[in-house]
Amino acid sequence: METGKSLRDISPADVKKMTNGELNVLCDELRSFIYEKVSQCGGHLSSNLGAVEATVALCNVFDFTKDKIIFDVGHQCYAYKALTGRADKFDTLRKEGGLSGFPKRAESKYDCYDTGHAGTSVSAAIGIAKARDIKKEEYNVIAFIGDGSFNNGLIYEALNSLRILNTRILIILNDNGMSISPTVGGMHEILSEMRKSDDALLQKRRPGGETDAQRARNEGIALLESFNLTYLGAVDGNEVDEMTAALKQAKELLKEKSVLLHIVTKKGKGYEFCEEHPSITHGVPPVGEKRQREYSQVLGEELQKLAAKNNKIVAVTAAMTDSLGLRGFFEAYPERAFDVGICEENAAVLCAALATEGMKPYYAIYSTFLQRAFDEIIHDVCAQDLPVTFCIDRAGISGADGETHQGVFDLSYLSLIPNLTIAAPRDTEEFRRMLKWSEKFRHPLAIRYPRSGKSSLPREAKIKRGNAVRSLKIAAGTWEYLCRFSGAKVTVIAAGERCLSIALKILRALEEKGCSSAINVVNGRFIKPLDTALLSALRGAVITIEDNVLCGGFGSDVQRELLLQEQNEKIPRRIFRAFGYADRFIPQGAVASLQKEYGVSCEEIQSYIEQVLCHT
Amino acid sequence: METGKSLRDISPADVKKMTNGELNVLCDELRSFIYEKVSQCGGHLSSNLGAVEATVALCNVFDFTKDKIIFDVGHQCYAYKALTGRADKFDTLRKEGGLSGFPKRAESKYDCYDTGHAGTSVSAAIGIAKARDIKKEEYNVIAFIGDGSFNNGLIYEALNSLRILNTRILIILNDNGMSISPTVGGMHEILSEMRKSDDALLQKRRPGGETDAQRARNEGIALLESFNLTYLGAVDGNEVDEMTAALKQAKELLKEKSVLLHIVTKKGKGYEFCEEHPSITHGVPPVGEKRQREYSQVLGEELQKLAAKNNKIVAVTAAMTDSLGLRGFFEAYPERAFDVGICEENAAVLCAALATEGMKPYYAIYSTFLQRAFDEIIHDVCAQDLPVTFCIDRAGISGADGETHQGVFDLSYLSLIPNLTIAAPRDTEEFRRMLKWSEKFRHPLAIRYPRSGKSSLPREAKIKRGNAVRSLKIAAGTWEYLCRFSGAKVTVIAAGERCLSIALKILRALEEKGCSSAINVVNGRFIKPLDTALLSALRGAVITIEDNVLCGGFGSDVQRELLLQEQNEKIPRRIFRAFGYADRFIPQGAVASLQKEYGVSCEEIQSYIEQVLCHT
Repeated sequence: METGKSLRDISPADVKKMTNGELNVLCDELRSFIYEKVSQCGGHLSSNLGAVEATVALCNVFDFTKDKIIFDVGHQCYAYKALTGRADKFDTLRKEGGLSGFPKRAESKYDCYDTGHAGTSVSAAIGIAKARDIKKEEYNVIAFIGDGSFNNGLIYEALNSLRILNTRILIILNDNGMSISPTVGGMHEILSEMRKSDDALLQKRRPGGETDAQRARNEGIALLESFNLTYLGAVDGNEVDEMTAALKQAKELLKEKSVLLHIVTKKGKGYEFCEEHPSITHGVPPVGEKRQREYSQVLGEELQKLAAKNNKIVAVTAAMTDSLGLRGFFEAYPERAFDVGICEENAAVLCAALATEGMKPYYAIYSTFLQRAFDEIIHDVCAQDLPVTFCIDRAGISGADGETHQGVFDLSYLSLIPNLTIAAPRDTEEFRRMLKWSEKFRHPLAIRYPRSGKSSLPREAKIKRGNAVRSLKIAAGTWEYLCRFSGAKVTVIAAGERCLSIALKILRALEEKGCSSAINVVNGRFIKPLDTALLSALRGAVITIEDNVLCGGFGSDVQRELLLQEQNEKIPRRIFRAFGYADRFIPQGAVASLQKEYGVSCEEIQSYIEQVLCHT
Repeated sequence: METGKSLRDISPADVKKMTNGELNVLCDELRSFIYEKVSQCGGHLSSNLGAVEATVALCNVFDFTKDKIIFDVGHQCYAYKALTGRADKFDTLRKEGGLSGFPKRAESKYDCYDTGHAGTSVSAAIGIAKARDIKKEEYNVIAFIGDGSFNNGLIYEALNSLRILNTRILIILNDNGMSISPTVGGMHEILSEMRKSDDALLQKRRPGGETDAQRARNEGIALLESFNLTYLGAVDGNEVDEMTAALKQAKELLKEKSVLLHIVTKKGKGYEFCEEHPSITHGVPPVGEKRQREYSQVLGEELQKLAAKNNKIVAVTAAMTDSLGLRGFFEAYPERAFDVGICEENAAVLCAALATEGMKPYYAIYSTFLQRAFDEIIHDVCAQDLPVTFCIDRAGISGADGETHQGVFDLSYLSLIPNLTIAAPRDTEEFRRMLKWSEKFRHPLAIRYPRSGKSSLPREAKIKRGNAVRSLKIAAGTWEYLCRFSGAKVTVIAAGERCLSIALKILRALEEKGCSSAINVVNGRFIKPLDTALLSALRGAVITIEDNVLCGGFGSDVQRELLLQEQNEKIPRRIFRAFGYADRFIPQGAVASLQKEYGVSCEEIQSYIEQVLCHT
């Protein structure tokens, strides 16, 4: 076998026929293949490296032309993709129109359920198994889940329902001790106790005369088995022979009852640097990709500064401490820094409760994952009007992770909530000022920003133009003019750095064409409340740009306000147009390219403005 | 002591001084008091009756001028309210401006955290305790939670974080075997085993030589204690002496570590009918209140009819089978009916997974509780474009339960989601037709409706007026004219029965004034997609009415569409005005009164229409 070529020709049926020796060779091939492809295209590296042997063993023991497997989150599915006819597509991994980094039903008949967010796999497996039972069909359903995801509340809800739905699934709990950050919490402690045993396979509880370690282990088994399943393990998930034997045993037991197979693997297996730095190598950029300044770094620096002087400040994350820039804060203020694991809802309620007692919590999270805490934002934080600040990273199109990870809904699902103030800084320096300002703000606040950006506005915006009313002072519901001309017929209000960059680019292009005072550019840094005074003074045409879906977003709110003003204040009608994303799920691709394709195109906006300028 | 009078004068300090004999008398007084007040005002009856002794014991053992208690959901807080200076306000229970049926910080210093939705209490207690630790203060924090709520995923997330946050709280697990429906699931089975013991108080595990029952019990204890707490119980929570002793022991143990005190109570305690019918008497209407026909009844009838002919139809609920009208379905088709307990997220993923395998799931739930599954609606159902139907009951203002239970956000948080179709029937008969139609619909669908309504349109709408294009045929994105006049200057588009009733009332009022063909009334039965063809043909003024917040709602979507049409199709500008709720949390009160106060007032809408008619 040779790398690449041979993998391209391998089918799951071939893997079923392999000897243990051949399976071991295949694992080495796969590991090199994944390392090479991810280094080239970027992607999730260390978790995929750790799951190679387990995947090969799965393909050997099960028949995925009828059996079904759901990879929780999906960061462990590369080997499975390569073995199910997709090895030749890895050069397009995470690129526009290319192979997804997550399971995708639309991509292959071997993918039965799309994932991306944590904790859905067990519920999904139960649902699929139940459909099988109702239809009186026969196949196996497997949920493959990491110990990080296993902390999520959905898992408990799913385990609880195993008894109610009375069906049979195999849960493979891939215990590598890591989420993206190291796994934390009570369940993790329980699993740790259970890993300590060196016994092999089917672990019957052996009450009576047990040691403390055995008792802890027996109790852990009892805990898991109380949810109507049989526990198997712990098995070395990086030994293909052992995995194969364990899966064969699990397959037999599964005829009677659900099975939880506990496997222990090494995240980053096979590559020293990845094994030693599983958090950094969880997701890696393509070779040669340069990144701009990260907003997360500013968050970390600024919160640490604030916390040094204010002992009420607390930072909360849900298993993403490093990627949110808070490692330094956690080290400097461990007693005021909480990583609660992949438990977005719990984190939100904790923040609300901390705030009722006078603390000032900052909850840092990615836009797409905050969706999980939607009810708690309404019910716990905003209905009680508590001063919790949500620091929302990866807002807007996030790119290569695709549909499940685009942060394009937050302005809509947040702006419908009473009592919540929503901001989007124009650059990392304004983000810094907003954080400083937020310290004294006494209500719920959301600040949303993309992954990376500029430390200050681009050059062209620094040139004072017209009567720009630049304001370094932050106050809720106030915008600033970056450029303002007395005769301007068009005012572009852009929310956040990405959209402001587009507005400024258009300004420069128009200037180059000789329309030097044609448009005003406003930094719409508060999405809620709007700067109604500024809006009220506007005449001519108003254009909004947002890195969010149009439905229920910034433009929608501005349009409603403009009309209200026209009706109540007898203001003449303004021409209005909102630019934002279409009402579709946005797939993977490059950020700039997707922005353009889905509705925020510099050219299109400029062309619209030129048309307005010609006709007014 | 006499009922009422004495309670009005009792303070928590008095309860602390009482003898066991006096405590028992107080319990009887409280029980009669609650029964009387709830019978009169309506409210949550049986769960409050069951918690009387536990509450009295809590007030005896703890000092709630500094100790803090969080009642999960809040259906067990009436005795606590009565004992903390609010007995004299019970005549205003759940009325506008009156005593809330839930804990409310704004109402009393004795309420430290607002609740309403299930499962938040343990997270909230941990957050408050952590703030206490950071501030180096000393008091006790208690979460009082029913076994129904204990099934929710948030509890697992909170228990997991007990170890991470390393603080001390007391969890009182009030095990009455019921949510609103009987409690179900794995955790419930574990608790059942633990209830069987007749041992008193602090149950040390006793390994070795144990019976099966003891072993099951020991394992349950081990399970709970693995989350870094001490288990106490099970205690008879309806015996005030036993409860007092248990709480004293818990208070001591709490100095070292968190404690879970497992108490067993009888829901509806003291009233035979309530004890025998805890589900029916969970929430009761005020004496003499008559209800209209319930949409839930139609849901049950119609789904059963459809399921009789289509074996793909599955019904899923989250602990509300009776109140959603599905008891009959569950009895007729037990193999295709799943109550997964208070696990809204799990239910959503189960539905998505069932749909991937060709099943046709109907997920019935209250509007406000569906907020919990927001991410799963996006990530599991809509991103995969699966034919799951959400039957959303109690949509719009729900009334007496207040802020946490108003269903006024769903049109906004749902309409931002791609691939989702959203409908609101004009009456229960149209609901029936929509359900029939939904059977063949192959995409995600949400049908939202209020609790009760009319079986068909009111009389005035049946009189054919103008060129009404009434259409019994349902198709996504099609509306119908209830009345249409060639010269009408105003078109009112109303979404759902409540809003249509207002529109029709205005029509009649205008006719009585002699403006007999002034307005068209459109049944805006699809909120998404909109009937763009109908909208495109409109001239003059367009008015929308919705039982939802204005922000991101139906009116917002119509306004955006009107503008797009005007820009793209050269249609002359239409006057537009949206009526819906203001951007505020809506407190408890009568539905009609709240509708009017918060923005959907028949008088105000009529007055606006008259003004438009005069000026155009």
